[in-house]
Amino acid sequence: MERPLISDREGPLLRGSALPDLPLALDRESSRPLAAQLADGLRAAAHSGALRVGDRLPSTRALARTLGLSRTVTAAAYDQVNAEGWIAGWHGSGTFVVAAPAEPVQPARRALSPRSPATDPGGPDLRPGTPWSAALRTAAWRRAWRAAADAAPLDRPVRAGVADFRSAVAEHLLRHRGLSVEPSAVLATGGTTAALGELASSVLAPGDVVVVEEPGYPRAAGALRAAGLRVLPTPVDAEGLVVAELPGEARAVYCTPSHQFPLGARMPADRRLELVRWARERGAWVIEDDYDGELRHDGAPLPLLASLGPDIVVHLGTTSKILTPTLGVGWMVAPGALTAAVCDHREATGTGPAPAGQRVLVELARTGDLGRHLRRVRRELLGRRDLLTGALRPAGLGVLGDRAGAHLVVPLPSATAERDAVDAAARGGIALDSLARCHIDVAAWHGLILGYAAPDTRDELAAAMASLVPLLARTGGGPG
Amino acid sequence: MERPLISDREGPLLRGSALPDLPLALDRESSRPLAAQLADGLRAAAHSGALRVGDRLPSTRALARTLGLSRTVTAAAYDQVNAEGWIAGWHGSGTFVVAAPAEPVQPARRALSPRSPATDPGGPDLRPGTPWSAALRTAAWRRAWRAAADAAPLDRPVRAGVADFRSAVAEHLLRHRGLSVEPSAVLATGGTTAALGELASSVLAPGDVVVVEEPGYPRAAGALRAAGLRVLPTPVDAEGLVVAELPGEARAVYCTPSHQFPLGARMPADRRLELVRWARERGAWVIEDDYDGELRHDGAPLPLLASLGPDIVVHLGTTSKILTPTLGVGWMVAPGALTAAVCDHREATGTGPAPAGQRVLVELARTGDLGRHLRRVRRELLGRRDLLTGALRPAGLGVLGDRAGAHLVVPLPSATAERDAVDAAARGGIALDSLARCHIDVAAWHGLILGYAAPDTRDELAAAMASLVPLLARTGGGPG
Repeated sequence: MERPLISDREGPLLRGSALPDLPLALDRESSRPLAAQLADGLRAAAHSGALRVGDRLPSTRALARTLGLSRTVTAAAYDQVNAEGWIAGWHGSGTFVVAAPAEPVQPARRALSPRSPATDPGGPDLRPGTPWSAALRTAAWRRAWRAAADAAPLDRPVRAGVADFRSAVAEHLLRHRGLSVEPSAVLATGGTTAALGELASSVLAPGDVVVVEEPGYPRAAGALRAAGLRVLPTPVDAEGLVVAELPGEARAVYCTPSHQFPLGARMPADRRLELVRWARERGAWVIEDDYDGELRHDGAPLPLLASLGPDIVVHLGTTSKILTPTLGVGWMVAPGALTAAVCDHREATGTGPAPAGQRVLVELARTGDLGRHLRRVRRELLGRRDLLTGALRPAGLGVLGDRAGAHLVVPLPSATAERDAVDAAARGGIALDSLARCHIDVAAWHGLILGYAAPDTRDELAAAMASLVPLLARTGGGPG
Repeated sequence: MERPLISDREGPLLRGSALPDLPLALDRESSRPLAAQLADGLRAAAHSGALRVGDRLPSTRALARTLGLSRTVTAAAYDQVNAEGWIAGWHGSGTFVVAAPAEPVQPARRALSPRSPATDPGGPDLRPGTPWSAALRTAAWRRAWRAAADAAPLDRPVRAGVADFRSAVAEHLLRHRGLSVEPSAVLATGGTTAALGELASSVLAPGDVVVVEEPGYPRAAGALRAAGLRVLPTPVDAEGLVVAELPGEARAVYCTPSHQFPLGARMPADRRLELVRWARERGAWVIEDDYDGELRHDGAPLPLLASLGPDIVVHLGTTSKILTPTLGVGWMVAPGALTAAVCDHREATGTGPAPAGQRVLVELARTGDLGRHLRRVRRELLGRRDLLTGALRPAGLGVLGDRAGAHLVVPLPSATAERDAVDAAARGGIALDSLARCHIDVAAWHGLILGYAAPDTRDELAAAMASLVPLLARTGGGPG
């Protein structure tokens, strides 16, 4: 047994050098003798795996010096564990761990399993929110990461975001969203809800009233509530948020005009102008979550709220839906006082979005791969949208909100019909969400939300729809 | 001019398909005629660059249909801009932008320059907090990003973090920090201050008292204050946070026991046990920021607070100091109720750390490159530490907190001496921080903080010290 331990310089003997990192906690006020405490510590380290078979222990003299103990104490501790049979010494070679100690002294730390809501459903996944990420298994994607690696080590944290990222976003907004801004007006964010939290903490104050859509995006409401704001849901209709019903005391209005989540309205230009006028008159901010903004299927392009009211609109975008949430990257375009307040908040709290994901986006934009990917995604999603409506409508099922994005809604007549449909789909192995998840205060709408981006291929989606449609037709999904 | 426009199918003609994204805002309530508004919109688009020379416009008929207008209106608008000379039509080929329009209609958005605190100083940078990132210009680093790219597109957002990341951190904590935890007890975070904000929002409540060190890390105090907590600074001495001075009403105690920031104390085992006992008796949490934990130069390893009090300690670590802040990655190990509360908070607010940086760390850990990099960084920083103390002590300058980490403190007798030293260094082109930046409430300590990780090479650091030491000796830096 001796030779391999001594000769394997890459293994055990190198490992021996890690020993000084062992946590050997000695409590000099304890009634337990120091040698016994030291033996406990060695045993616990061996049991935890911090000290393994083949590891070399320091000499009793070296350990005594390191720990500020008498050598009598360290020698007594080694005698104890040696008597237990799991260490052994060889003259001139040191003392080695030769076996696992008999029993643990340190109870194993309780294993925790924090809930993970996004479990893989196994079968087809028709939940909204997951992008068509299979489309990123490309050489262009790998190339972008490789190039990002070269720039990444030397990033200094800049609260507003990486300069090249801000330029890339300004160009993206101009080409794909028709919004003309200077790169210096763009802030990197960690995504839409992260940005909402920052706005709530830096621009608004606890107790301020902020409007959200009903039904709407519950995590947006959650992010605003967590920051201490009073969230007032306001109804949406076929044109999106109903401006006539906005409460006068609102300090800010959060909405998703490009493709209302979840019902899918595209807010017409008139309603947009009405909202901007309303907010200007009252000195309120409008937070434009450009959800699905790049993913328009039918109809005219519409001006961003940020184009109509650059003085009062905070525009939020993200790569989560057009690329992947892995990057954790988004952006904010806002009036100067607001971007300055957000940067001040980041500086005071030491926070801000990580450059890693920004770097990858920069490379994708620089090569033009971002634009190519976006065109490919739009084309694919349009085909998938047509696949869904082509399967739903002939079966007498209604469809809402299919003019943009990567989900549509199948309205159902009651909460019961909705629950039955979700349960039937689950029994058929299909994961989907319902409008029950999107009520902020009042459950006024019932139906299914069918996301069509997650499946890798259109064939998988078609197969899922072939199973789903008969189930829906049986569970009360009549004409919508 | 006609031929290239028509034949260049990859250029202008493809660009033509982007036109439907133009934001053409028409206000039907406005007194301005619709045709004039449409011409305004086209002109603004051309001026902003959304519409460029070579772009093809849709036919008047197609545009009328898209916008829901009479063709009379679109034709009148085209007539107007055609008269301005910057569009032209060719029979059978469509209408093209042939020049830039004469003058802007849309005023340029005001360019904002949010403050960026981390400007490159130009000369030597001796500020703390920047790691030795030049060490990451390696094949191993690039390999890790390339491998991360393959896994990244398909990540579903998991609030607790990527599973492989949690395993990699558990192994890192065991091998380098002597802490034995199950991967399921590890949460990914966006870094230390981001984690503090999450703890403040999910475990503590507005108005709760939380202790920070005085002097200490101002951004930690900032993150806790921003969440509405009452921050009570408590003094540190040569052994770190003074437990005897802790206020009884504290619900949580934040500290940096491995290398107190900024003064550099390593909290001895006795003090650690005293802190854990104090917190257990009062039912308070201890937040252990393991700042510089992996970067011990001298002395015995010490047990983590998380080892001594796993029931009451929240342990926070980060890759910002041992790799680079670019990844935006850290970790939290905490009692189960707390990790569950943090995950619930993330789920409710739609937030959580981005997988991108986690993926890179996973790859570095999997190949063993993380361990090799860490050993290299420790070796280099030890050499740099010796370089600094070897330059400072012979000049009669004092040194505090040099037993670990990547910074040390040169105490100075007064605030005036401190200001003079910082100013003299700045005039010499050397950027450095002083203790004035680290007072939470009371300016009881004066001195310079010399960070020695940022320069690319030891030679650069030596040159900076050769300029700095004579300046300090002249500005009152007597024996410490």
